[in-house]
Amino acid sequence: MPPDGRFSRRGFLATAGAGAVGLAAVGAGGYVLGRDEDRPAQREPFHGEHQAGVTTPVQDRLVFGAFDLQTSSPAVLRTLLEDWSAAALLMTEGRPVGEVDDNLAAPPVDTGEALGLPAARLTVTFGLGPSLFDRVGLAAQRPAALHELPHFAGDALQPERSGGDLCVQACADDPVVAFHAVRNLARIGFGRVSLRWTQLGFGRTSVTSSGQQTVRNLQGFKDGTNNLHGDDADAMRQFVWVADEEPREWFRGGTYLVARRIRMLVETWDRSSLDDQQQTIGRFKSSGAPLTGEREHDPVDLAATAVDGTPVIPRDAHIRLAGPASNRGRRILRRGFSYTDGIDPRTGELDAGLFFIAFQRDPETGFVAVQRRLAAGDALGEYIVHTGSAVFAVPPGARPGAFVGEGLFT
Amino acid sequence: MPPDGRFSRRGFLATAGAGAVGLAAVGAGGYVLGRDEDRPAQREPFHGEHQAGVTTPVQDRLVFGAFDLQTSSPAVLRTLLEDWSAAALLMTEGRPVGEVDDNLAAPPVDTGEALGLPAARLTVTFGLGPSLFDRVGLAAQRPAALHELPHFAGDALQPERSGGDLCVQACADDPVVAFHAVRNLARIGFGRVSLRWTQLGFGRTSVTSSGQQTVRNLQGFKDGTNNLHGDDADAMRQFVWVADEEPREWFRGGTYLVARRIRMLVETWDRSSLDDQQQTIGRFKSSGAPLTGEREHDPVDLAATAVDGTPVIPRDAHIRLAGPASNRGRRILRRGFSYTDGIDPRTGELDAGLFFIAFQRDPETGFVAVQRRLAAGDALGEYIVHTGSAVFAVPPGARPGAFVGEGLFT
Repeated sequence: MPPDGRFSRRGFLATAGAGAVGLAAVGAGGYVLGRDEDRPAQREPFHGEHQAGVTTPVQDRLVFGAFDLQTSSPAVLRTLLEDWSAAALLMTEGRPVGEVDDNLAAPPVDTGEALGLPAARLTVTFGLGPSLFDRVGLAAQRPAALHELPHFAGDALQPERSGGDLCVQACADDPVVAFHAVRNLARIGFGRVSLRWTQLGFGRTSVTSSGQQTVRNLQGFKDGTNNLHGDDADAMRQFVWVADEEPREWFRGGTYLVARRIRMLVETWDRSSLDDQQQTIGRFKSSGAPLTGEREHDPVDLAATAVDGTPVIPRDAHIRLAGPASNRGRRILRRGFSYTDGIDPRTGELDAGLFFIAFQRDPETGFVAVQRRLAAGDALGEYIVHTGSAVFAVPPGARPGAFVGEGLFT
Repeated sequence: MPPDGRFSRRGFLATAGAGAVGLAAVGAGGYVLGRDEDRPAQREPFHGEHQAGVTTPVQDRLVFGAFDLQTSSPAVLRTLLEDWSAAALLMTEGRPVGEVDDNLAAPPVDTGEALGLPAARLTVTFGLGPSLFDRVGLAAQRPAALHELPHFAGDALQPERSGGDLCVQACADDPVVAFHAVRNLARIGFGRVSLRWTQLGFGRTSVTSSGQQTVRNLQGFKDGTNNLHGDDADAMRQFVWVADEEPREWFRGGTYLVARRIRMLVETWDRSSLDDQQQTIGRFKSSGAPLTGEREHDPVDLAATAVDGTPVIPRDAHIRLAGPASNRGRRILRRGFSYTDGIDPRTGELDAGLFFIAFQRDPETGFVAVQRRLAAGDALGEYIVHTGSAVFAVPPGARPGAFVGEGLFT
């Protein structure tokens, strides 16, 4: 201890070196505290042709944040996006959001809860809402397919869980790492953006690489069996990444994110019979096989009929209406997470369900087309209610030295 | 497929066998779907002298549920506790809560979301609230030290996050497994109990075994450095387990659980200087060392003074007031988790912090004594607010064939 009983640079460095966090010089100006348990496999690259967090194999945890922009200045938006990309790059490398020094008089540059934790495959994905472009006088740059979602029958959307000028999707295998990302981006944006809503997800319900096992959702069914695989580059080109159809060159290589908070009425579901549940979904609960098969990945035979002529997979079964055969072969890439947010104070029932995220080349032919059909006739509609909704344009990825959304300003 | 296109026992068994879940005959009456990726190390025993989940090395995730009893019948309470123990035993073994069969007409016996997942070190810990005993005419059985907690200065308790006749603390390394436990216990209790509140925790902030690394809380500080170790049997006997001081023999071997939902005013904290933060806690942020040391586990020297005679660890520093030296050497066993529950709609700020759980032999000399001192003078009080509170008597463990709380009825 220095004699005045306070903090000193020497004391700080000794202290830091002695603790669990590693120390790496990054020049004369300061030091960066790294997280020294990282293995390369735990890092997902931030830079690339596309943003990470779309086709990346789904991590275990999600923290999603939607923000309102508090400025009409495109220059302020630009510096915000620059700052956000710089911070996201550091965090996906398992580092704090800036140089950690011993300046006692200033707030620490990083909030610190993730120090000592691995990068945990963190991805930070930025999106731009339909309301953003007019707000900053950039209407001409607005991607062609970015529109507010239409109202669907049965929607019970809560404004405080919907919309937003910007979004951050943070996914990681450690919930503290994901939370740290959104919290520090909110802090960096202080005075320029305010948090509008956040959502935690705690169990992935979809697959995006061919090797991952299908996870069960909170209705107890395997969810995502026929999802696209993120490592299927042809499918991504066909269904996910925006290409020449977009006249604004800056947005090519981007995609569209639709988020829906789908509350499951779990008490009602849990009291319904196994038969009701399976007929509602169109799959067997135990195996996940379609009602026309015995194994999970057996084909969904929508034409199969029982001896009395009725379809084996009911006309209103969820997989019939949601599947690509009912959607002219169009597909979306799902990246869903289970959530539970305690008790609904009005009913005393659990507020739990699915935070549904889908990526697509065009929301109108992707999510909107599917949801119109589901809202009109899906048997599952009796057991769920959509309580939150948002759509965002997800810009292409950034090259090293550039930032996500830079094309907006050129 | 059977010709009627529906579900059959034969089809079900083939289906189940083909899926990811294993199948084990448990007698002529039915089948149990096990989770076939279990390793023995992922299971925590349910039976024992004490309940699991107290000294068990802290798992990564928490789902805590508090319940109101909907009956005044001790016989109904007894069957509820029997049913809960039976289900908890199965779940801690990685099994569904009952035999899974092909009865299409009935709701599935298990909600199913954890099928295929490992036991994930699940522990299920039951507690009995102060309000329970009068309600069922068992006042004579009420443990001697079980009283409602007093009001503390600065408390801003929300009734909908406080109290309860019964509690279930489910801890696991997988949040779906922990959620599944509370959900299925709520379902089993339908008509006898209703959920009063739940709380998710997503990052442990304490240690209970000597090998575990100290985790940082959402203020970015290592939290739990000087916590008791659950594998220190002498300390557990001295500070945690109720013994002969309890005249009611049935409760010996039990303990008391205090839960406090401590919201951190993170935006304010994040804007305070490093010096303020360190003087508030009494530790260095980077290393976790006390201000009188250089390494995390260096001793906290409360007597050390700077050249000007002021104490190095300030008089109102959190570790001075919370530590055992200020509490006549008495200790509590902490088992805390970080939480974040989205945005406070009144302020637009994050509702995040610490779900604090402590176990002790007597709340009055444990948590209450510490909290009285903290509420009166802790510098940290400026940055936190207690928004939920509850206390429960945690009965001793059950032997095989018995159930938790059985002693209440003898």
